Amino acid sequence: MHAEQRQRAQAYLKAQGLDRALFASPASVTWLTGFAAPVQLGPHPFGGGPALVWYAGGEWTLIVLDGYAAAAQASSVAVVSYLGYRIDAPIDGPGQLLAALRKVAGAGAAGRIGVEERALPLFLRAALPEQAALVPIDGALVPLRMRKTAEELVKLRQNFALNDLGQAAARAAVRVGATELDVWAAMQGEIQRAAGQRVALGNDCTVGRRGHSGGWPLDVTIEPGDSFVLDLSTQLHGYWSDSCATYYAGTPSQRQIAMHHTVSEALELAVSLLRPGAISGEIDRQVREFMRKAGYPVYPHHSGHGIGVSPHEEPRLVPYNALRIEPDMVIMLEPGIYFPEETAIRLEHAVLVTDSGVEILTKHDKRLPVS
Amino acid sequence: MHAEQRQRAQAYLKAQGLDRALFASPASVTWLTGFAAPVQLGPHPFGGGPALVWYAGGEWTLIVLDGYAAAAQASSVAVVSYLGYRIDAPIDGPGQLLAALRKVAGAGAAGRIGVEERALPLFLRAALPEQAALVPIDGALVPLRMRKTAEELVKLRQNFALNDLGQAAARAAVRVGATELDVWAAMQGEIQRAAGQRVALGNDCTVGRRGHSGGWPLDVTIEPGDSFVLDLSTQLHGYWSDSCATYYAGTPSQRQIAMHHTVSEALELAVSLLRPGAISGEIDRQVREFMRKAGYPVYPHHSGHGIGVSPHEEPRLVPYNALRIEPDMVIMLEPGIYFPEETAIRLEHAVLVTDSGVEILTKHDKRLPVS
Repeated sequence: MHAEQRQRAQAYLKAQGLDRALFASPASVTWLTGFAAPVQLGPHPFGGGPALVWYAGGEWTLIVLDGYAAAAQASSVAVVSYLGYRIDAPIDGPGQLLAALRKVAGAGAAGRIGVEERALPLFLRAALPEQAALVPIDGALVPLRMRKTAEELVKLRQNFALNDLGQAAARAAVRVGATELDVWAAMQGEIQRAAGQRVALGNDCTVGRRGHSGGWPLDVTIEPGDSFVLDLSTQLHGYWSDSCATYYAGTPSQRQIAMHHTVSEALELAVSLLRPGAISGEIDRQVREFMRKAGYPVYPHHSGHGIGVSPHEEPRLVPYNALRIEPDMVIMLEPGIYFPEETAIRLEHAVLVTDSGVEILTKHDKRLPVS
Repeated sequence: MHAEQRQRAQAYLKAQGLDRALFASPASVTWLTGFAAPVQLGPHPFGGGPALVWYAGGEWTLIVLDGYAAAAQASSVAVVSYLGYRIDAPIDGPGQLLAALRKVAGAGAAGRIGVEERALPLFLRAALPEQAALVPIDGALVPLRMRKTAEELVKLRQNFALNDLGQAAARAAVRVGATELDVWAAMQGEIQRAAGQRVALGNDCTVGRRGHSGGWPLDVTIEPGDSFVLDLSTQLHGYWSDSCATYYAGTPSQRQIAMHHTVSEALELAVSLLRPGAISGEIDRQVREFMRKAGYPVYPHHSGHGIGVSPHEEPRLVPYNALRIEPDMVIMLEPGIYFPEETAIRLEHAVLVTDSGVEILTKHDKRLPVS
């Protein structure tokens, strides 16, 4: 599992002259091994720190809490697990993790070790050879992650299909008198049943008047005339999906219909601009320009972004970005129109860039209600 | 908010001769300030690291991502926020956090600084004075957290009331033909509506045959004869609740009824043993002994544990523990009987220890169904 990812990482490390490296960010660990710890409750109460991946001379080792050992075995790298929960002595996840890492990584020589020092807890420095120089490699995998592997595309497609189900459930649940939390519960129940497990969910699930980043659902009742924005992310097997649709309680106003059409056209324009060789910042510029010419305020956020083991990654479609679009990238496109305190409309597609064009991965219904 | 907590921490630091300290664990940050970042989606994608609390000479400063600044202002300490999301340049949460911490903490002299080095990312070491010696203070607040303040008890009571609603919803949802995820969805929807917001939820929500730590709900259908164990934690404002009840689809068997009564008696015994001055390990021993004498296999987990800004904390009711029970502790008690592949029964109360006795905080219905 994820052998191609490790080949890319190994090539990077070789080019840097690094024959040892320690990865500690959840995104890197998942990308390198396929293992993902659940996130829904924060860090594991009995864990000693994040899951770690140690690389030395072509060999990879995944270090996890004992409670995750079975899941970690599904990866195709060596797994070392350490003791967490116990009743015969005080729980000491950190001490156990330190000892496990020392055993794997501590015996080496001085020299240089690549380290994700933004994710590695300070106390674990003591597990590495004292004389070794640590070389920061935070963010090094980000460009390597942009082009998705065939294995990743399978996971992402599964995840986007789940996302589609959530959107359909929300579309059916939006009505005058329901609350944001009612819509959320309908969507959440549907997704978890379809996935056969709990699924971490984000982002915005609000009436449009709450603005462009309305956020998590509250006890806010949907009123006549409200638009409803569901910007939905699901996390499955450490990979993210994303999508956005805008629904209406009853018949949208003429103004909302006009806005919905404009956002839909902006999204179509963005899809048409997304092709191998295009410049991220240029796509962003053209979609913003379209919105400006249509007479609407230009959205204050990105036009889009990559997605994978993180919910928002390169290439970002933002003004400064000179990154070129390449085949096998999966990119979110999400223009919107916002009149805070009044209404909001945003539509979002996930698009896979292919050698010859694009494929839209999100299949959710983004049309206006027929009425 | 949380002034008493900071007084206790300050007294500890003074006793250690520390006039500077850096706290980085979510539990410490919440306990010291009342601020809690949401956990449901893992670390914030635009954040630079965990929220931090800096202490210097009697003054406290909370350092958070800009997206959390408004929530952080509700604490009564100084707040410093740093830039996360942006579209005019690459997002650099870690760089911004490093700069913010350096500004607050970097100018001091050499000498000693207390640091939670198990939670502090390695790269933030560079924000502290290079000549300063770092003194590990991980776990230092754990004993100070055992006795809950009046302010904490308000939060915990609110949280346990929410938990009760979740148990009631689950009790109503357990029936032959429903799945574990159906029960979970009913409970989750009820809790979120009652809280008026999303709520992080744990722990076990499974048919009893899945064992003593069955875990998260799956697409497993409840069959005739199944017991159903809901061990439910809710996280609200950074504080945890916990409870466990066992339900039945239809009429429990005579064997299950006998087991249910025994667990209920074991729980009552545990409550009766919990009083100021009792020894944690001795309570554990007596409840286990009761279970053994009743002729059942003794549960492989703790008899109970403290709860607060973490879901499982001191005093742990486990064999080795010599800690004395004190007033204002809130302690979970949770005996169980398990026959893996067959059935499981666990009942759990949260109990506040008072000067004169105890008060049960969990009000959920743990009785057998009348039929």
